[in-house]
Amino acid sequence: MGEEFSAAVGRGGGVLRSLEIGALPLEAGGSLPSVTMAFECWGTLNEAGDNAVLIQHALTGSTHVSRGDSEEDGWWEGLVGPGDVIDTNKYFVVCANMLGGCYGTTGPSSIASDGKPYGSRFPFVTIRDSVHAEARLADKLGIKLWHAVVGGSMGGARALEWAASYPERVRRCAVVAACAASTAEQIAFAQTQTLAIRQDPNFAGGDYYDGAAPTSGLGLARRIAHINYRSETEMESRFGRQAQSGEDTISHDRLAALGASGSRYQVESYLDHQARKLVGRFDANSYIAITEALMSHDVSRGRGTLSQALAATASVEFLVAAVSSDRLYFPAQSDALAAALPGDVAVHHIDSAIGHDGFLTEVAVVGELLRESFFTV
Amino acid sequence: MGEEFSAAVGRGGGVLRSLEIGALPLEAGGSLPSVTMAFECWGTLNEAGDNAVLIQHALTGSTHVSRGDSEEDGWWEGLVGPGDVIDTNKYFVVCANMLGGCYGTTGPSSIASDGKPYGSRFPFVTIRDSVHAEARLADKLGIKLWHAVVGGSMGGARALEWAASYPERVRRCAVVAACAASTAEQIAFAQTQTLAIRQDPNFAGGDYYDGAAPTSGLGLARRIAHINYRSETEMESRFGRQAQSGEDTISHDRLAALGASGSRYQVESYLDHQARKLVGRFDANSYIAITEALMSHDVSRGRGTLSQALAATASVEFLVAAVSSDRLYFPAQSDALAAALPGDVAVHHIDSAIGHDGFLTEVAVVGELLRESFFTV
Repeated sequence: MGEEFSAAVGRGGGVLRSLEIGALPLEAGGSLPSVTMAFECWGTLNEAGDNAVLIQHALTGSTHVSRGDSEEDGWWEGLVGPGDVIDTNKYFVVCANMLGGCYGTTGPSSIASDGKPYGSRFPFVTIRDSVHAEARLADKLGIKLWHAVVGGSMGGARALEWAASYPERVRRCAVVAACAASTAEQIAFAQTQTLAIRQDPNFAGGDYYDGAAPTSGLGLARRIAHINYRSETEMESRFGRQAQSGEDTISHDRLAALGASGSRYQVESYLDHQARKLVGRFDANSYIAITEALMSHDVSRGRGTLSQALAATASVEFLVAAVSSDRLYFPAQSDALAAALPGDVAVHHIDSAIGHDGFLTEVAVVGELLRESFFTV
Repeated sequence: MGEEFSAAVGRGGGVLRSLEIGALPLEAGGSLPSVTMAFECWGTLNEAGDNAVLIQHALTGSTHVSRGDSEEDGWWEGLVGPGDVIDTNKYFVVCANMLGGCYGTTGPSSIASDGKPYGSRFPFVTIRDSVHAEARLADKLGIKLWHAVVGGSMGGARALEWAASYPERVRRCAVVAACAASTAEQIAFAQTQTLAIRQDPNFAGGDYYDGAAPTSGLGLARRIAHINYRSETEMESRFGRQAQSGEDTISHDRLAALGASGSRYQVESYLDHQARKLVGRFDANSYIAITEALMSHDVSRGRGTLSQALAATASVEFLVAAVSSDRLYFPAQSDALAAALPGDVAVHHIDSAIGHDGFLTEVAVVGELLRESFFTV
């Protein structure tokens, strides 16, 4: 275990920790002068440094995969813990906040060397940049070889990029509800979301930390995203055309305009709720930074064809899984990834009507796939 | 032919005309005091008043279906004209601008009795309100019985509502790429679009006609909509991950923020173009008014179950068609509509990879379906 860290981490987790990894060169040129990587961890690293598992969070996810010793459930609660699929009696589990994020890792809301938040000065970063930063963190932690790197959605993109960038350090790699490169449609939806934030007058070009935050824009971005995280059939069966309780949809109250209540459909109220929840926990600049990093996702960039790029991962054991009803990361994209991987990789299907978010809601199914593939007792 | 109008219309069309239809009671209560209906028409109405065809435009469509005597191609060019499928030597063809629109019919940008634009004072209107207004226009024009009412997308919703509201006045009804009632998902995407406009600081609650228009908001609304008008596969095959010519997507230029150029993907540039085009021709308040009218679309509202609501249309001959790759108005929604219609109604499939917009781009296929069903020589 790395020196700087050995004193800080023991058994039990759910506590946010951080380590300095120094200056980080960036794919688009230049560098970030001083990067802090925040992470949570559970369990204990062994002497060989090869019993570690990296879990990669999604776009707006935090490092809080699992409750651990904390009070709050994690976003994959039940997957990580003593006796769980990823058994913390055997494995040292790490979840690091993505570069550019707002859960402790250096991002736009971090304080730059002049004592002020980066804001508009935060550079463009890529998925690959974050993976390089995560590799530095692994160095600091003394992790030689990941038993597995596991991620869903953007976390899947980061997991795949780990395998391609550091195949000698990744024994197993799980790519769930993700693909080899962000598609035109994923880029298009991402553009609408970043624009929604940038067009909020409170955004102020990204330098809003002294004033009101661009909450309307971030809320709109979340609404656009959230629709795509769900399936048409799920929304229809939950909400249909029902009016929100006590409201009337055939009403001139719609003219109340912004934040109108009194005339909403249930599904509108639901989206309002999703927007409010995210706005309360996420930084708008980080939303843009990470969304644009995800737009950049292309495991083959600078590495030839997709098959050529993935040839380097021949020693890595892959688990590829898709949510059956996903219409943001279509199962066909998982098929294409699996087909391009070396060897014979099957695509597992997570049977869910919910859409993309199935990678989060069907945690038991994800766990069972991981148990069968990577964590047999 | 109605008196007020007989002098104005002869052969040849493509010229915008208008008629006053008086005060219009609204479904949400109250009334619009004085309504002007704008329309284009082609051909000549017969003495019996039963050779007329109503073509209903989509959300941002105009009355300009066909070039006629004008200089500009229509949005269903080739369908309407002497010797065409809808032969103007035989039929009197009308396309009316929807209530709330900005192509001549009374809408938010119209001048109210106090000499100022309605703006925020324009009331909430429904698809049904527009159909009632269109029925008044038909009265004025002397049209007793439509040979056919034909529409795609929102035009399909209006066509269907015509058949349910005035079955004795509709001989045939074509509902293309549309459904019986807007779904939760359609409402959800609509909310993001109206919010995009309302959150534009230039929107000023809808009273922006004295100042700058909310073009950024309207442009964002169009981007969100346009993605849904196309299919994932169409966008991927056209644009993939290509950078716009001369631009570099892995670049800190993204920080140039709003309207950034220099670092766009081709699909972003494409959406920018679509946004600019709409902003140049459409009023933001009308976009909200018509979008919310479409959210209200439910042919069964106040009429019992869907089958009960449609029982009244037993005398109407239906053509129901869906675009195979449509993911905004799924073919299954056309199936559900057809199943609920009286009698045995087949669903025709417009085979296209383009998505919802196939109802516009596949004009020859739409024409052939109309010829076979409604316009046999």
